[in-house]
Amino acid sequence: MTSWEEYKAKAWERINRDKEIGYLDPDIYDILKAFFSRQKSYTQSSCSGRISIIDAKLPWERRDSTVVFKDHLKFSVEDLYDVLDKGIVRRLWLIVQGPIIHVYTKDMEEALNVLKLARDVGFKHSGILSFNDKGILVELRTGVKMVHLLKPNLPEEEAKHLVEVSLEILNKGKEKLNNLRNIVELSVANDSMKLGEDSKLDTKFHYRIS
Amino acid sequence: MTSWEEYKAKAWERINRDKEIGYLDPDIYDILKAFFSRQKSYTQSSCSGRISIIDAKLPWERRDSTVVFKDHLKFSVEDLYDVLDKGIVRRLWLIVQGPIIHVYTKDMEEALNVLKLARDVGFKHSGILSFNDKGILVELRTGVKMVHLLKPNLPEEEAKHLVEVSLEILNKGKEKLNNLRNIVELSVANDSMKLGEDSKLDTKFHYRIS
Repeated sequence: MTSWEEYKAKAWERINRDKEIGYLDPDIYDILKAFFSRQKSYTQSSCSGRISIIDAKLPWERRDSTVVFKDHLKFSVEDLYDVLDKGIVRRLWLIVQGPIIHVYTKDMEEALNVLKLARDVGFKHSGILSFNDKGILVELRTGVKMVHLLKPNLPEEEAKHLVEVSLEILNKGKEKLNNLRNIVELSVANDSMKLGEDSKLDTKFHYRIS
Repeated sequence: MTSWEEYKAKAWERINRDKEIGYLDPDIYDILKAFFSRQKSYTQSSCSGRISIIDAKLPWERRDSTVVFKDHLKFSVEDLYDVLDKGIVRRLWLIVQGPIIHVYTKDMEEALNVLKLARDVGFKHSGILSFNDKGILVELRTGVKMVHLLKPNLPEEEAKHLVEVSLEILNKGKEKLNNLRNIVELSVANDSMKLGEDSKLDTKFHYRIS
């Protein structure tokens, strides 16, 4: 049977492999690293927040839907018109999603600690999703979201405004992600100070924050 | 100290009081009743799903925002134009929200049972939010959501289409709520059968489903 520590080690290897091949969200590494530096936490399948355009009848559908645009950092009027020019099969949904972090914790105390940290910096839709061999799965989620029905013939003024508001919302999500990283890093620094320099916490997965 | 059973009794009284004064969502009573009929569950502050229009810079903000329209069952082109005619202070967001049910369970086994029931009928964003005197708080939530930025001068064709899509999404939420009610009622009926007619489950809060 795989131990919790082995799952954590494998998850860390995978993140670094994904990072190397460019598969990881471009701005998510530091927050993941911060969680790994907590002794009893590690992360899996997380998202730093993104703008996407989905061709689907209903915006939450995965079947019968196509992602026609996706970017974690930027979005322009040109991007928007590129998509619109390709035509619509079902409906086009412009979706801005805040960050979603999945944390596996070793025990319930750590799950509640992580939940508290996250809620304090605006991850208000966070909760415990399940319990399994990998640990207690905690989802950290903000209320940052836009799900806008795009119409085919979009005047330029409207396109500009939509892009502007989308980026504003994306950035609100990034701010919250940044605040989460800060507070998690701080929590690790505090634990280290409490436990002293030669603490056993300073293992392979305990990254010193300097 | 108030016992879990007393919290449940108080919650049930409150729901019936709210129902009488018209404060309860018009189509939520049956699903709440179904949860109360599970021996180890009760509900609090839930929503059957609704369409609202919010005047706010950002759609998730509670401060500096005004709810200018809210309905759990219907929405018309006239409703939409009524709102637009009143003018915009910040931005107008047309929000369609699926049902959100908050269940307090007596123990973790029940919390996981409720989560499983809910996930099986499409409440995929469900999780455990917290633990306190009232019980284990489980939030049951779907992915049903639209958060659309309204523009001030809306052509009638576009208004019609928006209302149509909003109602389609609202109804998808209601369908899921209905499926949740069915599966919870069924779970109670099954438990009753297993335990026999003279079961101790058949207490004040165990409503027979016929």
